[in-house]
Amino acid sequence: MAVTDPVQNLQTLIRCPSVTPKEGGALSALTAMLEPLGFSVERVTATEPGTPDIENLYARLGSSGPHLMFAGHTDVVPVGDEASWTHPPFSADIANGEMFGRGAVDMKGGIACFVAAVARHIEAHGAPKGSISFLITGDEEGPAINGTVKLLEWAAAKGERWDACLVGEPTNPDQLGDMIKIGRRGSISGFVTVHGVQGHVAYPHLADNPIRAVTAMTKALMSPPLDAGTAEFPPTNLEVTSIDTGNSATNVIPAKASFAFNVRFNDTWTADSIQAELIRRLNQAANDQELRAGRPAIRYDITWSERPSHVFLTRDDALISSLSKAVEAKTGRRPVLSTTGGTSDARFIKDYCPVVEFGLVGQTMHMVDERVAVADLEKLTEIYAHFIEQWFENAKA
Amino acid sequence: MAVTDPVQNLQTLIRCPSVTPKEGGALSALTAMLEPLGFSVERVTATEPGTPDIENLYARLGSSGPHLMFAGHTDVVPVGDEASWTHPPFSADIANGEMFGRGAVDMKGGIACFVAAVARHIEAHGAPKGSISFLITGDEEGPAINGTVKLLEWAAAKGERWDACLVGEPTNPDQLGDMIKIGRRGSISGFVTVHGVQGHVAYPHLADNPIRAVTAMTKALMSPPLDAGTAEFPPTNLEVTSIDTGNSATNVIPAKASFAFNVRFNDTWTADSIQAELIRRLNQAANDQELRAGRPAIRYDITWSERPSHVFLTRDDALISSLSKAVEAKTGRRPVLSTTGGTSDARFIKDYCPVVEFGLVGQTMHMVDERVAVADLEKLTEIYAHFIEQWFENAKA
Ligand SMILES: [Zn+2]
Ligand SMILES: [Zn+2]
Repeated sequence: MAVTDPVQNLQTLIRCPSVTPKEGGALSALTAMLEPLGFSVERVTATEPGTPDIENLYARLGSSGPHLMFAGHTDVVPVGDEASWTHPPFSADIANGEMFGRGAVDMKGGIACFVAAVARHIEAHGAPKGSISFLITGDEEGPAINGTVKLLEWAAAKGERWDACLVGEPTNPDQLGDMIKIGRRGSISGFVTVHGVQGHVAYPHLADNPIRAVTAMTKALMSPPLDAGTAEFPPTNLEVTSIDTGNSATNVIPAKASFAFNVRFNDTWTADSIQAELIRRLNQAANDQELRAGRPAIRYDITWSERPSHVFLTRDDALISSLSKAVEAKTGRRPVLSTTGGTSDARFIKDYCPVVEFGLVGQTMHMVDERVAVADLEKLTEIYAHFIEQWFENAKA
Repeated sequence: MAVTDPVQNLQTLIRCPSVTPKEGGALSALTAMLEPLGFSVERVTATEPGTPDIENLYARLGSSGPHLMFAGHTDVVPVGDEASWTHPPFSADIANGEMFGRGAVDMKGGIACFVAAVARHIEAHGAPKGSISFLITGDEEGPAINGTVKLLEWAAAKGERWDACLVGEPTNPDQLGDMIKIGRRGSISGFVTVHGVQGHVAYPHLADNPIRAVTAMTKALMSPPLDAGTAEFPPTNLEVTSIDTGNSATNVIPAKASFAFNVRFNDTWTADSIQAELIRRLNQAANDQELRAGRPAIRYDITWSERPSHVFLTRDDALISSLSKAVEAKTGRRPVLSTTGGTSDARFIKDYCPVVEFGLVGQTMHMVDERVAVADLEKLTEIYAHFIEQWFENAKA
């Protein structure tokens, strides 16, 4: 079976130009790999007014439990400056032991390896003692409206249930074996407009400079620290990402000023409790007596990003240790169990089953000359195959 | 002599549409008033690459000292929404005891009254025992490049020397007699760009958010207070007038952020010393160890507005008391001697002779329906006439 070779699988996938929201032939190519293995494959097109239609794929092998899901995406980010690539971004050229191409590590590579691992498992052990499914979206790099969320809802509605999920995103900072992600911080963004009173700088008592409050409010958001980190998570961190007044007149105090911030919060908080704490800090700063010098609290509006990402931590020891041991067995390195970094679609999957993430080395993701060491593809396939074996062992027990 | 009537003088001037940089007939009309009184009138056109040519006027009556200058401008700000005016902005219509028109109080009214006052003085006492001159610019409301500064240089170069100057700007907040300006705060603007390192909000340790420094730097500029005010001046005040990042990506820490500020400083400072103090505060904040958490001082650029306005205070008791007594004699009110408010062309004149400012009530200046009480025109003319008499008495003594 050719699909036991992750290198061939990945070349096939990279050569499909599936820049979000385009399917680009990638899901068809994946279908052609999975059906011969016995998977029943379903293509699910998700639609939402105001966003492009997105093709997704759900494939299952087996009908009984335990049920292991592999999740990922075939869409890729744009190639950037195509002329700067050493090899064309959809060529999958191999040079000096590295395969070049958009999606090589994020994350067609992970998919290519998991397909190969399943094929090898079947070759070695026959059909799995349970079920394996692929939940693959074409909308991870886009607005993520018509992707994993809808695909999970669709599958759950027709009765699908899972016992564990592995997401194949590139989790290793430097070397294969560095890091498994076992949770993610939550994320929420806020947009604040502070309303002052416009006026001439020579008559500040007739005006109310909103920038004074903005300075105090942004400072209050950033310090003191929201927490010192927890056993499993780094400290919550808030960044003010913009402040804007759009006032070009140097002798005019502006009528209003706006700022935006994003907070990445750990399991000290829920989305609700962190919002409440930030509002408390904003109100305190807006009403600070020294700052306001007897004036009433400054008026401000706040809106929050539509859907917060909730913090989560996976505590399924069987899942984590199956993966961790597989990594150690094949790389000789004990991976860090981490909750750092950005959000991923794991934040949606965690509402359905325990979820962990492990894939390739992410260094070149989203960059010109995205590429993967060919040796890493073989190694990751071995890790995945070992993990599949271990997981079904443990899940049976 | 018709020019003894300030109402007629002002109607003539308002009907000249002299919106900066247009002369609009205003200086010709003024020439026609002054020459019959015996003034020798010179029209001076000032030019500078990149700015419109500006017509100015210098007129002198008498050739000996003491020499009193009256300074002002015939240019006016644009009319704004003409349809919103109760009476057309260049009509000089009188209704319910008020004359409507752009420039009514700022400051064709002041000129109209001073012309009438000089005419009355000549009628009552003959030619002044010394000299009176008018230094009138057409570029006070514009960039002020081709106005008072060049006119003073031109006059001084041909040997003109003055013993005192009265500027006829509207100085009274509510009622004629409220306030004489005897000095002005200095003014300087700064523009700062703070250079951080761009990055993803989920990996703040790989980035360096410039907004953190901007918040600290703007706060350091604003507090603690720069001073508590002096015997003659209100406290120095600094306003941050803008902060801008132009970053719309809520998950990106921006590479840089900019802010602008303006400081109105009293005689605690010179333009040089206030700049040095502000730089000291900026450096301290940029290098704050707690904020920087071990990083080197954040890098920032600063540029300053081209020409600072220097602070000044007029200490000529004869000039101030002549004016103050004239105001009190005609209004029954003792005017406040103030240094508040914005800058005026007095900041240029103070390098040549002591200068004070007194004119009409400024409430409607620069607004739709700018207007003046006709009774105030008569009253201000009487004040100016009394002042001229007093000043030549005192200057003689
Ligand atoms: Zn990805
Ligand atoms: Zn004016």
